[in-house]
Amino acid sequence: MALRYDNRVAIVTGAGGGLGRTYALELAKRGCKVVVNDLGGDRHGSAGSTSMADKVVGEIKAAGGQAVANYNSVEEGEKIVKTAIDAFGRVDIVINNAGILRDTSFINMKEVDWDLIFKVHVKGAYSVTKAAWPYMKDQKYGRVVTTSSNAAVYGNFGQVNYSAAKHALIGFSKSLAIEGAKYNILSNTVIPTAGSRLTQTFMIDALKPEYVTPLVLYMVHENFPETGGLFEAGAQWYGHLQYYRGEGKVLENATVETIHDNWKAVSSMDKPKHVASISEQSAMLMEMLGELDAKKQAGGSSSGGSSSSGGSDAFPSNIQSSALFQEIANGIKEDASVVAKIKNTFTYIITDNGGKELGKFTLDFKSAQPSVYLGDCKNGNAAVVVTVSDQVFMDLAAGKENPQKAFMAGKIKAKGNIMLLQKLQTVLDQKKKSKM
Amino acid sequence: MALRYDNRVAIVTGAGGGLGRTYALELAKRGCKVVVNDLGGDRHGSAGSTSMADKVVGEIKAAGGQAVANYNSVEEGEKIVKTAIDAFGRVDIVINNAGILRDTSFINMKEVDWDLIFKVHVKGAYSVTKAAWPYMKDQKYGRVVTTSSNAAVYGNFGQVNYSAAKHALIGFSKSLAIEGAKYNILSNTVIPTAGSRLTQTFMIDALKPEYVTPLVLYMVHENFPETGGLFEAGAQWYGHLQYYRGEGKVLENATVETIHDNWKAVSSMDKPKHVASISEQSAMLMEMLGELDAKKQAGGSSSGGSSSSGGSDAFPSNIQSSALFQEIANGIKEDASVVAKIKNTFTYIITDNGGKELGKFTLDFKSAQPSVYLGDCKNGNAAVVVTVSDQVFMDLAAGKENPQKAFMAGKIKAKGNIMLLQKLQTVLDQKKKSKM
Repeated sequence: MALRYDNRVAIVTGAGGGLGRTYALELAKRGCKVVVNDLGGDRHGSAGSTSMADKVVGEIKAAGGQAVANYNSVEEGEKIVKTAIDAFGRVDIVINNAGILRDTSFINMKEVDWDLIFKVHVKGAYSVTKAAWPYMKDQKYGRVVTTSSNAAVYGNFGQVNYSAAKHALIGFSKSLAIEGAKYNILSNTVIPTAGSRLTQTFMIDALKPEYVTPLVLYMVHENFPETGGLFEAGAQWYGHLQYYRGEGKVLENATVETIHDNWKAVSSMDKPKHVASISEQSAMLMEMLGELDAKKQAGGSSSGGSSSSGGSDAFPSNIQSSALFQEIANGIKEDASVVAKIKNTFTYIITDNGGKELGKFTLDFKSAQPSVYLGDCKNGNAAVVVTVSDQVFMDLAAGKENPQKAFMAGKIKAKGNIMLLQKLQTVLDQKKKSKM
Repeated sequence: MALRYDNRVAIVTGAGGGLGRTYALELAKRGCKVVVNDLGGDRHGSAGSTSMADKVVGEIKAAGGQAVANYNSVEEGEKIVKTAIDAFGRVDIVINNAGILRDTSFINMKEVDWDLIFKVHVKGAYSVTKAAWPYMKDQKYGRVVTTSSNAAVYGNFGQVNYSAAKHALIGFSKSLAIEGAKYNILSNTVIPTAGSRLTQTFMIDALKPEYVTPLVLYMVHENFPETGGLFEAGAQWYGHLQYYRGEGKVLENATVETIHDNWKAVSSMDKPKHVASISEQSAMLMEMLGELDAKKQAGGSSSGGSSSSGGSDAFPSNIQSSALFQEIANGIKEDASVVAKIKNTFTYIITDNGGKELGKFTLDFKSAQPSVYLGDCKNGNAAVVVTVSDQVFMDLAAGKENPQKAFMAGKIKAKGNIMLLQKLQTVLDQKKKSKM
């Protein structure tokens, strides 16, 4: 089945030559209406003529396709998007492809070398995508492809500026994917390896831009199944890149010397593992935290007033927040005096993302011996009952959710004397400061 | 053995609080002289007082350490480095730690949200490091640690600006590592997971900044064994992150449909592999290219005038450039007319990085039947003999080296009628254009 782009409108930046031109030509061939953006400048960023974009538009029209030229700088994203809206009434696809080079060793780099690279690659991609975003959001459809580089992933001599800018675009694209998810806007990054003039000199067809084109075309097709991804094309090879994390090592109360002595384990990539999201990363840390606690419980004394994991009272391992309640329990065990002033009880109902209860934890800071335990308050009704999902509670603890915002958004629900939560926070903050 | 920093001078940006403060305190405790930089602003980037830096300097001095405060914005790197030089006469360590947040959904993001984040995180790290670089280069010693974020690696909602900026710093640090290698300047990136105020509220000691400190301290120690690396600390776990590449798939003359039909193989991460450098990436592509050629040779006709891989005439597999010469041979086999005008012979001596000869290739474009073969020219003396390392030849072909610069730098040596190389290039360029 042929993959078509009929009734779609694409903006391709830097489409006067090279890769951008091949994207524009191929999209138009397959029914897409294309805004061929090119400043006409050379690859060092100096001003140019309008002829490059015009020529590509001419090629497209000669072949029976629809296209319009635009000569704005990519920093003027609104004007480029306006060209799309004026000519075709919508924008479905943005291919952030425009780029320049200002290669120089870091020691000789001038501020203008740094600034120009960031203006064109980074601010340019931001500006065009930002201007297209409201249209994509309203129509609940969008495909964004942003261009990174091998120089970003691996670093390169003489390209500190370019490498940083092209790396920025990976993060840009990844976060856009998260923001676009609910509007059916997909955002992905491509790393092309395409030939230079010299390569062509040697008749090395292997690196011709046309080998990158079909990957990028697929990445902006309505059937593309990925978002937030980083894909690579070159020499007729197509592949996928992801961050992997080594197994690392838990080192309790580490000093610089501890890190030095355990460096082999810390830096080992013997068992690489991909982590897919910031929540998964959080969960992994919390899991390790849980293991640390379990170890402490196993090896530590049984004195102190709080309940703990281990035995029938164990905090459920299927609840990530268990580790956090365990931490609080441990804190009280070390020093119960701080919570004595609170003189109240708090019950937390932890749910899954669908709102189904996973478990209840009670902080009893009213009893003579403060404690943290599973289940409802055993000491009368809790002064406050908080309902929150395991996920949100973890994100709050890791500072990834703002408590006020989460409360306002209904992600945290509280019944009873809500102001006591504020008191809990204030008391514990003071305690914290005195410890630092 | 205690790890010390005696006689070293460190600049820690944003050291008035949080992580930066812990780095400054711990460095000073271990003999380092520290410039405590802090604008005193809050975490949204508004202007502040000088008291934060002063307070940390006071703490250091009270404990018998040496420190001086600096209140400049990180965009004024020269002034911050001047503080170090004026007070202590040198700078050995830069910890790029200063940062602000301007969280907002992409749809509501203002240009100032984007620009401020890039100014402080990215331009700031550039500015301070750039000002310190000449000192580090001259003294042949430097340690740079730059701070990235989980939000960069994984992306995050409401942080398209922050995620892009923090990602930029990974590329910045990686390329700096390559530039600094010959001056004993190491450059690495840290991803800290440290607790927020809320985390502290819950007494979650697990995410306290002090758990990140020993990793960063080790990363700026003279014995640190890595450069260009990305390391992570949080919840007493220490680890390492790297990009991995899937096995991907070679798809000859792919169309969009080919990519679609083979997506599972293209995107598969079943066999992830770390690629360490841009040269290794190049080599992998060229290897695949070689395999493609071998396949073609095995399945193709034996007509045409050029020699080829396979049989006793095979281009050596230990020379990466073999694939490039094979490409040229294939090109001639398809259409010999283009090189007929050149009427000259060229011999390439390919060496290893130490200058040891690995093999010779001759392009015979003088004979009635042009050919490419191993060894010296069989048709009289070659008009030009080029000596170049396998590595540089690959980089040239991939557009990663500029031929003029490589020639000027002595990376390419040529004997004979050097102008013929220009002719070779021009003729092949024309041929190329007519094909596009």
